[in-house]
Amino acid sequence: MSVEVLASWSEGSAKDAVIDFVVESARHGSSGFIPTVERIAAFDNDGTLWVEQPMPVQAPFLLEKLVAQVRADPSLADEQPYSGIVNHDEEFLRGLAQQVPDAVLAFLKGVGAAWEGTTPDEYETEVREYLATHTHERFGRPYTDLVYIPMMELFELLRTHDWRVYICSGGGRDFMRVIAEDTWGIGKENVIGSAPEFVYKEGKLVRENSMRGNLALGAGKPEHLFARTGRLPRFAAGNGDVDIEMLEVADFGLVVVHDDKEREYAYTEAAEQILDLGPDHGWTMASMRDDWVTVFDQGGMT
Amino acid sequence: MSVEVLASWSEGSAKDAVIDFVVESARHGSSGFIPTVERIAAFDNDGTLWVEQPMPVQAPFLLEKLVAQVRADPSLADEQPYSGIVNHDEEFLRGLAQQVPDAVLAFLKGVGAAWEGTTPDEYETEVREYLATHTHERFGRPYTDLVYIPMMELFELLRTHDWRVYICSGGGRDFMRVIAEDTWGIGKENVIGSAPEFVYKEGKLVRENSMRGNLALGAGKPEHLFARTGRLPRFAAGNGDVDIEMLEVADFGLVVVHDDKEREYAYTEAAEQILDLGPDHGWTMASMRDDWVTVFDQGGMT
Repeated sequence: MSVEVLASWSEGSAKDAVIDFVVESARHGSSGFIPTVERIAAFDNDGTLWVEQPMPVQAPFLLEKLVAQVRADPSLADEQPYSGIVNHDEEFLRGLAQQVPDAVLAFLKGVGAAWEGTTPDEYETEVREYLATHTHERFGRPYTDLVYIPMMELFELLRTHDWRVYICSGGGRDFMRVIAEDTWGIGKENVIGSAPEFVYKEGKLVRENSMRGNLALGAGKPEHLFARTGRLPRFAAGNGDVDIEMLEVADFGLVVVHDDKEREYAYTEAAEQILDLGPDHGWTMASMRDDWVTVFDQGGMT
Repeated sequence: MSVEVLASWSEGSAKDAVIDFVVESARHGSSGFIPTVERIAAFDNDGTLWVEQPMPVQAPFLLEKLVAQVRADPSLADEQPYSGIVNHDEEFLRGLAQQVPDAVLAFLKGVGAAWEGTTPDEYETEVREYLATHTHERFGRPYTDLVYIPMMELFELLRTHDWRVYICSGGGRDFMRVIAEDTWGIGKENVIGSAPEFVYKEGKLVRENSMRGNLALGAGKPEHLFARTGRLPRFAAGNGDVDIEMLEVADFGLVVVHDDKEREYAYTEAAEQILDLGPDHGWTMASMRDDWVTVFDQGGMT
């Protein structure tokens, strides 16, 4: 008797390549065998595990928080990043979207100040509240419903072959950890992301207005993965140019290609290089349109 | 049929307290039940899992490296930390042992410079070579033979009750990771320690001469554990004053008391506070002399 795997993937070379690599990695005597301790798989989050259009899920959460800060203290509206946000300053917002350093740094400064002095539990409560009360502007569903079912099946395939699955995203570590266990079935400890510093004083952890190391983007991805696990991943999946380095270090690279404007989105922005480099690197290019039978869970469009 | 656990522990209140806590943590309906996701146990290393006298295992490894640096470049002998080491400067060495900031910073600067530009594999090879060719000055056995068997049995008890075991030590992360899998049966990714920065460039990770965040000592222990796991440990074990904060945040604290000069060492230095505070905090004080039948593996003295 055989067990069906990757049921939401269309028959074809992408599905075959993924299954072949994972099954061989666990077959003793295979040329593709990988010792169990080395079976570390790393996944980007936004655009790889769930919808990142029209903007990454965390962005409206952060923007809403900064707007609330200005409401509580109107004098903030005179300075960045608050003035750019409340005045819908197109140049500032475009700078943020295009990751212009000045804009990003001003934004992170605002984010750092917003939660300075709070505990991890307080932040988790805010994220849960946000996710429970907001829906995606196009799909009208909670964000956690917009996780790609084919990727959840891939987690399961990896786990049943003794892989440890890590998330490695430039997004906020503590934001992702809130959904890790319920939505992904992954322990909080397997989530790597950009993060603030916390200090332990008087019996509790309190958030500081400073970042913990570099952002988990680009070269930061293998750097964070090594720091966390002591190894580099043998399997890696991403969808954007900031995932290139993480795929470079892996034996198997999977690229999610956003070419399905009917069921999700079709775009190449911030993915031009990975789409160009992928085939030359031998990475498996998974077309959302052609390789996935189902994108989202039953409740929505499939 | 029952399974014997903690076989190297003497019958008594310490053994009873540990077994009771762990068994109840996994028994549904028990007042001591802990959800599986929260079952995180954290252990200090030097003096908690293996011998730390006359000095922590990593110290002679680092000192030998710095001496070799001076041999390769004699001009280094004019400056700290090299001059203090090669001239056996008692004031400097005492400052190092007592963790006087100036001495420690000079020492870390030397350590940082010694491996600057190397890859993780190069460092791992050096550590393996060192451990394979050096023995403990009193016991005449390789350092990895000087792991406490009662603590290895405790790892096993925790694992069979679905706890994830983390090591959280002020010692070097990458040094400990070399022995984690073979000696402790713990994944490299479950080892937290003080660590240098690595940067990813031209397809490989290269070590920089800078530290990654704070040292995993004192308040740094809960800080590192939260950053790594997204939680604080529910079980924690240590033996020194730098472990107090880690035990404070846990439900169950275990303190290894070094009172066995026959089989190991008897000392209270750098443990005065934890020995004093422990009973008031309800921590379980495990006397090496009275609570452990066996200290080391068969080959040596038991």
